[in-house]
Amino acid sequence: MGEKQKGRASILFKEPPVITAAASVVGKKEGEGPLGTCFDQVEMDSMLGKKTWEEAESELQTRAARMALKKSGLKKEDIRYYFGGDLLAQLIATSFGAMNLEFPLFGIYGACSTMGEAMGLGAMTVEGGFADHVMVAASSHFASAEKQFRFPLEYGNQRPYSATWTVTGCGNVILSKGSAAGKEAGTWKKDGGPLAKIAGITTGKIVDMNQKDSMNMGAAMAMAALDTILANFRDLGVDGTWYDKIITGDLGQVGKRLLLDYLLAAGHDIRERYMDCGIEIFDEETQDTHAGGSGCGCSASVLCGYVLPNIKAGKWKRVLFLPTGALLSTVSFNEGRSIPGIAHGVILEGI
Amino acid sequence: MGEKQKGRASILFKEPPVITAAASVVGKKEGEGPLGTCFDQVEMDSMLGKKTWEEAESELQTRAARMALKKSGLKKEDIRYYFGGDLLAQLIATSFGAMNLEFPLFGIYGACSTMGEAMGLGAMTVEGGFADHVMVAASSHFASAEKQFRFPLEYGNQRPYSATWTVTGCGNVILSKGSAAGKEAGTWKKDGGPLAKIAGITTGKIVDMNQKDSMNMGAAMAMAALDTILANFRDLGVDGTWYDKIITGDLGQVGKRLLLDYLLAAGHDIRERYMDCGIEIFDEETQDTHAGGSGCGCSASVLCGYVLPNIKAGKWKRVLFLPTGALLSTVSFNEGRSIPGIAHGVILEGI
Repeated sequence: MGEKQKGRASILFKEPPVITAAASVVGKKEGEGPLGTCFDQVEMDSMLGKKTWEEAESELQTRAARMALKKSGLKKEDIRYYFGGDLLAQLIATSFGAMNLEFPLFGIYGACSTMGEAMGLGAMTVEGGFADHVMVAASSHFASAEKQFRFPLEYGNQRPYSATWTVTGCGNVILSKGSAAGKEAGTWKKDGGPLAKIAGITTGKIVDMNQKDSMNMGAAMAMAALDTILANFRDLGVDGTWYDKIITGDLGQVGKRLLLDYLLAAGHDIRERYMDCGIEIFDEETQDTHAGGSGCGCSASVLCGYVLPNIKAGKWKRVLFLPTGALLSTVSFNEGRSIPGIAHGVILEGI
Repeated sequence: MGEKQKGRASILFKEPPVITAAASVVGKKEGEGPLGTCFDQVEMDSMLGKKTWEEAESELQTRAARMALKKSGLKKEDIRYYFGGDLLAQLIATSFGAMNLEFPLFGIYGACSTMGEAMGLGAMTVEGGFADHVMVAASSHFASAEKQFRFPLEYGNQRPYSATWTVTGCGNVILSKGSAAGKEAGTWKKDGGPLAKIAGITTGKIVDMNQKDSMNMGAAMAMAALDTILANFRDLGVDGTWYDKIITGDLGQVGKRLLLDYLLAAGHDIRERYMDCGIEIFDEETQDTHAGGSGCGCSASVLCGYVLPNIKAGKWKRVLFLPTGALLSTVSFNEGRSIPGIAHGVILEGI
């Protein structure tokens, strides 16, 4: 087994890639939430000037990419690959969003875990010497997701308290070589250096709890989050105290309770250092979002707008960032299949 | 720029990963085609004993994975990651197909280019030292694809001559470290050593020809194939004669004509060394498949059943394998958007 490989599913990089820049673009509701001022750009028009919700979501990806590039001080030609994904069938938000960028593209699907999956692949690509800089992004849009997975918006369907609210947003990070070569290339210069480094990853496997309620995705994902967290602890020989913060993607209130209970039962009390992006992004009381936010864009935008700045500021030294995905599809769901979950961990450290 | 990086979009590996084993499982119609005897397993029941077409497609992935594992002589625990994808919304064939395998999973979406994309990512993962062995697979199923993208089968819709026939099939390859470490681990022993090595990759970008006819996917993909082939030639400083064979995924008769014409116009005559998996897999005259086969499973199963054995036998020394994808989605299509294309190149060489 290679020296970078740890246990069954984890990697610790010899020369951790750094996050050179990050950009977040979100919708109006997200801008009105508790993290509203953290995001780079709040779009007041949910259509972003486009004709359809799907095009609007693509535009989120395009705008976030342009902003990350600008912040990084890099040129478009410096970006070798784009790792992107979204929730929609056949990744249309990514296809059309990445088209104008003209980067060689790796399309990624991991439901709401996409940002974790894509960062893992992007980090391996950089550390393996296959690229000096790559761009990684994930997006979601409330209206395109409701149309794809649930009811027409006009129907005004009632939502149970376990339901989450799909975030309209996109997070985009540029990953760069962490070595001196990166410094020479000038990527450490802008804005006082990179935001964080990617120390390692833990890749999740599919976990099926035989959960069949599409209005309770938190429950579908909680066991997958547990599985990846325990794999991470086991592979690296650590426990929760190794991290200043363990941050799941979008378990919401229901999934959070399940995860913390499962972990307690397994002998791990991470309550003090736990956070869920979906719970942080909306105000449960005033924004009527029930269990919290969800969607690929939830963890991706909170990462870029809130998590990375806190690492950069030195508040958190080591974070386990764990986007969680519920592999929901209307086709399999309508055929009576369950909603399996998956979660991909990314170990972020201060520079 | 790192020494493995060539030009804008290509990589040449320092220590090329090898393909330790390959397995193909296809449907009855594919078994009756010109390559029928090449495939490892022909399933006479299009449902594979399952209740739905989607479950049947998942079963193709599960069976191909088990067969590749068996052929490789490796244990399940030796496989570090599974890179898989399919055509269906939210990759349900892969999610449910990979579930029983319990490998850490990277879900990949590149339409019918998925096998090329996934092999590229898998090869980088192995060569970068992040895994000793990974499994890479892509599948499609005629009936699940028709249901997702076109008309209910019962409707008996007529098909224009430019239409392709989605292949029911899955191809699965195991990629292993090419170094002495791989030899020591015993991966070179079984069946007289690996089938081929992956010398490099060229990653495609999205190319939009503003093509809006979902019954003519070949035209949608031809320019993407051209773009990646020219990028490959340019990045590596070669021309068509560097390859014994240039093999596209599923351009079919219409796309083939367009690609060869475009290439001739660009000064490259590759007609003598050109092949398209979609054209080879069915007999146009007797099987009523019109322009040819398509789907992620088309290039993947032809790779495993036909291309790799020919490389192993020494007939072809160097092959550019280029799965081609048409990023069709009913949502964007019904909104009047075009069908963009993408193609990912994999350079295969004899050992």
